[in-house]
Amino acid sequence: MKACLDCFPCFLRQTLHLARLSNLEEQTQKKIVDFTGSLFTKIDMNSTSPEIAHFIHSNLKDYLKNDDPYAEIKATNVAKAQTLLPKISKILTDSSDKLLTAARLAIAGNVIDLGACLEYDMEKEIKSVVSAKFAIDDFELFRQDIQKAKSIIYLGDNTAEGVFDKIFIEQINKPVTYATREIPVINDITVDWAKKIGIDEVATVVSSGAKIPGTVPKFCSPEFRKKLENADLIISKGQGNYEALSDTDLPIYFFLKAKCQVIADHIGLKIGSYILMKNNKDNA
Amino acid sequence: MKACLDCFPCFLRQTLHLARLSNLEEQTQKKIVDFTGSLFTKIDMNSTSPEIAHFIHSNLKDYLKNDDPYAEIKATNVAKAQTLLPKISKILTDSSDKLLTAARLAIAGNVIDLGACLEYDMEKEIKSVVSAKFAIDDFELFRQDIQKAKSIIYLGDNTAEGVFDKIFIEQINKPVTYATREIPVINDITVDWAKKIGIDEVATVVSSGAKIPGTVPKFCSPEFRKKLENADLIISKGQGNYEALSDTDLPIYFFLKAKCQVIADHIGLKIGSYILMKNNKDNA
Repeated sequence: MKACLDCFPCFLRQTLHLARLSNLEEQTQKKIVDFTGSLFTKIDMNSTSPEIAHFIHSNLKDYLKNDDPYAEIKATNVAKAQTLLPKISKILTDSSDKLLTAARLAIAGNVIDLGACLEYDMEKEIKSVVSAKFAIDDFELFRQDIQKAKSIIYLGDNTAEGVFDKIFIEQINKPVTYATREIPVINDITVDWAKKIGIDEVATVVSSGAKIPGTVPKFCSPEFRKKLENADLIISKGQGNYEALSDTDLPIYFFLKAKCQVIADHIGLKIGSYILMKNNKDNA
Repeated sequence: MKACLDCFPCFLRQTLHLARLSNLEEQTQKKIVDFTGSLFTKIDMNSTSPEIAHFIHSNLKDYLKNDDPYAEIKATNVAKAQTLLPKISKILTDSSDKLLTAARLAIAGNVIDLGACLEYDMEKEIKSVVSAKFAIDDFELFRQDIQKAKSIIYLGDNTAEGVFDKIFIEQINKPVTYATREIPVINDITVDWAKKIGIDEVATVVSSGAKIPGTVPKFCSPEFRKKLENADLIISKGQGNYEALSDTDLPIYFFLKAKCQVIADHIGLKIGSYILMKNNKDNA
């Protein structure tokens, strides 16, 4: 999916959020906003939005002299998500269809996205997602395909979302390879965070090699690209991975909440929609 | 009210909207977005948001070589608002408190703001505003004050909003001076548009002298500034005029819908709130 000019105000919003997260004074916040504004002219629109986000955020990391400016908020958000584990366990225990409920909870986790949303109410999200009508709901296809699949790749997205991914993978109850970003990029999950969350207890955790906030195949390591090509089924979490992979013909199920107008318009849905969508369903 | 960095993503959104209104190709749209990004560094944060909006939009006018790039959409929006006149008349005829209903309708008109909102549903807005609970509602104070007032100034905001202003002024039924911007700025009302709408049939239409999208006193003409200082009561429409005048001690009633987070936060309300608020009420 090609980048879109509507993403530019959002890049600026992310910049300001990052400046405030970094406890910069207002004058310095202004300078960093100016800096992002000055980068626009260097952006090539023939790239995906994750590539542009990477370009901006890697420049911001250099500017701030900080390789992981979201480190603190990632830790806070993981801790917050983990306080909800007793509630989530109860929801699963009470559920008559645990795979479905865990899949939906994994989508609830997708709101913890500091690229697209700056604020979220996780408890409200959990309550909503469990019973919501999904705008696209290929869950029954997914249930069939996952039973047959031998090599399953799970593409992680945001760090704290991993808490929910782990619960879903437990319900899949099959060998799963869980892929993260290569380095910290916005609040996306990395190998060390996946391990801290304990995803390595339920899956093989690997880096995709991608240093950008979306699994764009050409930016993955050759080894991981091979894994992607050979996978029977790929679970892709979130908007960044959707933007990275929606033009491929890989056997993907996209799990996401459409949190911005650009993504909602691209899929042809309302903003806020929950999506569990098989890739290239009509061509299958 | 001092400008805020949160306005910057919005300036970029306005730029993109303007580029699309001007039917520019995507490559040229990108150039104009880059151009606005490059202006940020020249912006002084010790100014009000209307001053910064003026700086950006006057640069955009030069860039586009177009003194009034919103001309067409202003005409479209006025025509659209005028098709609602029979419905509005019926609402007023059926109302037992015509001044109150007309005041609320004037606030409904405030959604036609291409600075803050790119889309609106006027019919829905009218239905909502007539019976809505206002977040701040100083209407009864306003009713008392307007009865006593001898010199009333009405500060217009968006062009098509003037259709609703005219109806309200008819109900005020007193001599009113209706002030517009000096030149076209975003979709704000000017003297010639006020006359096209027929506001000159119910009020004395004047230019405030302000070439920016808000009646910041120091940017008004000396004559108009004197009028403001001598007014018994000022009706100020919209966010731009609120940003321009909220720090003054003038006898103002602010009529607006809080359409963006910055304004909502400044007043201490939720976004989307309707406001009919006396200035400096607590100091009166």
